[in-house]
Amino acid sequence: MNIKVALTKRPDSTFPKNLDLFQLFYTAPPDEQKLRSDEVIVQNRYISIDAAMRVWMSGAKTYMDPVEIGDVMNAFCVGVVMASKSPKFVPGDWVSGLLGWQSYAAMHASRISKLPQNYPNPQHFLGVLGISGLTAYMGLKEIGQVKPGETLVVSAAAGAVGELVVGLGKIWGARVIGIAGSDEKCKYVKEVLGADDCIDYKKENVAKGLKRLCPNGVDVYFDNVGGEILDIVLSIVKDYARIVCCGAISGYNTASNESYRLRNYPRLIIKRARMEGFIYFDFKEKIPAAVKDLMDLVKNGKLKFREDFLEGIDNAPSALQRLLTGGNIGKVMVRVKYEKENIYQTPKL
Amino acid sequence: MNIKVALTKRPDSTFPKNLDLFQLFYTAPPDEQKLRSDEVIVQNRYISIDAAMRVWMSGAKTYMDPVEIGDVMNAFCVGVVMASKSPKFVPGDWVSGLLGWQSYAAMHASRISKLPQNYPNPQHFLGVLGISGLTAYMGLKEIGQVKPGETLVVSAAAGAVGELVVGLGKIWGARVIGIAGSDEKCKYVKEVLGADDCIDYKKENVAKGLKRLCPNGVDVYFDNVGGEILDIVLSIVKDYARIVCCGAISGYNTASNESYRLRNYPRLIIKRARMEGFIYFDFKEKIPAAVKDLMDLVKNGKLKFREDFLEGIDNAPSALQRLLTGGNIGKVMVRVKYEKENIYQTPKL
Repeated sequence: MNIKVALTKRPDSTFPKNLDLFQLFYTAPPDEQKLRSDEVIVQNRYISIDAAMRVWMSGAKTYMDPVEIGDVMNAFCVGVVMASKSPKFVPGDWVSGLLGWQSYAAMHASRISKLPQNYPNPQHFLGVLGISGLTAYMGLKEIGQVKPGETLVVSAAAGAVGELVVGLGKIWGARVIGIAGSDEKCKYVKEVLGADDCIDYKKENVAKGLKRLCPNGVDVYFDNVGGEILDIVLSIVKDYARIVCCGAISGYNTASNESYRLRNYPRLIIKRARMEGFIYFDFKEKIPAAVKDLMDLVKNGKLKFREDFLEGIDNAPSALQRLLTGGNIGKVMVRVKYEKENIYQTPKL
Repeated sequence: MNIKVALTKRPDSTFPKNLDLFQLFYTAPPDEQKLRSDEVIVQNRYISIDAAMRVWMSGAKTYMDPVEIGDVMNAFCVGVVMASKSPKFVPGDWVSGLLGWQSYAAMHASRISKLPQNYPNPQHFLGVLGISGLTAYMGLKEIGQVKPGETLVVSAAAGAVGELVVGLGKIWGARVIGIAGSDEKCKYVKEVLGADDCIDYKKENVAKGLKRLCPNGVDVYFDNVGGEILDIVLSIVKDYARIVCCGAISGYNTASNESYRLRNYPRLIIKRARMEGFIYFDFKEKIPAAVKDLMDLVKNGKLKFREDFLEGIDNAPSALQRLLTGGNIGKVMVRVKYEKENIYQTPKL
């Protein structure tokens, strides 16, 4: 059985409270007999849940094709090859790719990548060693160019990317101030991730908090939220500050005519500061070294992170809801369960 | 006689219509007998009028100290050394520096720079070979990184910086679309400067005009105005676009709580685009080569520009008014006149 979750209409202001824009379908799994040359069938094991999905759902043209109405929701995933007509893959191979919210995907082999086969936690390739980790790494290093002794502010600091930015910021010698939305999150950011401090934006005025904690201003702001917090940070950036535009989750659930409008952008001129968007795969040639670096940091226990699993594809909409409402700490993922359907029930690790 | 213009209060919403915040004083010129070691007396000949002055007047802390109430208005100037107790300068030397809105300035020699002594148009060192030229050059080359075949949009295209950005953009192989505020300016931008086209923002909706002229989007936007035009350009930037934040003249006369608020900044994320402020002297080590390059382009007639002179220090407030209300084409400067007061009446060129 192939369980699929499709997008049946564009999100409006009732989303993410209301999840009726998703629909679950049951179909036959892809037929191995009908596989064409260079195609593979992959069984989905872990689905990455990312804030960017909210943008893909909107139909906006970005670096990713939007999800069209009626299509299976798109997602970065990790899975196991079940059948292969590609010389590059054999059944049992752990792979990653855009498998989507479905149990099985038949696709051209060029659309998946082989993972290290002996790595004990393949789901890390969605988080710390995948989209979240590489986004944090490339954003902070290549765009933020953070230097030892600088003051780094990170919003959504307990989120999948934010938690790694906090950790990498400390490893690379910065003074790190997090911003997060609960006691529990702030505690996590300070005590587990090692941030120098963390502002609970639901409890303290962020402008006051940042003035208190960054009296000399901000060198690097890793922005996961956009909106008013971005405006506040702009008002206190130092000369040559860098704002890493990673996400604008604060505006994702807002109609565009109601979205927050930025006041302090002329500060970029007087502070010679920079605001820059990026996608980690723009730094393609630097990815292998970054993954190796991240893998070492994980292995040595120097980089802390959490994984927040929901079980079963039918829970993918709830997982996205949790992410978009800030109910998570760390990386949200869906773990896909199978009964006796296939021979790769137990990873061969 | 030393004629000085001082700032007597901070600008409010009646400025630049109302010029009562400036006051003219007559004092004795600096006394040569009282000069201390390493000091010089400079006679002011040309005063550069720049939009940034509006910011210096506001009292805001920027890369320049603000002009304090009661102080002589600050300005980049070109003048002639009248007396020198510095081994680096002799009377008659043409120099540039922040002499301010006054006929004579006594200052430490470290605060002035010697100009080439045989250059026929020393005022060029305020415009095409000075702040305007270097701002255009460094902004377009180092921040904008414009490449042949790219689409470059320039606002305030008939202004002192804009006209040079248009010219350099064409010389460096871009397709150049100007934005300016009158028939006469658009004609100048197209016919004299050689832009591929120019939008008259007072006649045509800029969003429509840019869609018409840049159907495939914008690679580089050299922003001299900020505000709504910046927002429109953000809505059509291409992947990896660069926005050179040079000025926000549209907001300079507005109280900060009424300033234009930017809607489309999340486009930086989805287009992996960059917005960056700068000051040309951040690229200090590249200035000599840039000046040489600009000098050659001027000599060969390849780079066109206009100089818009007002006569006499008493006209400096009107010159700034003209600039801030868009009444100029090209570089606004004040030419300082002297009767028989000094031996350097006629430049020794």
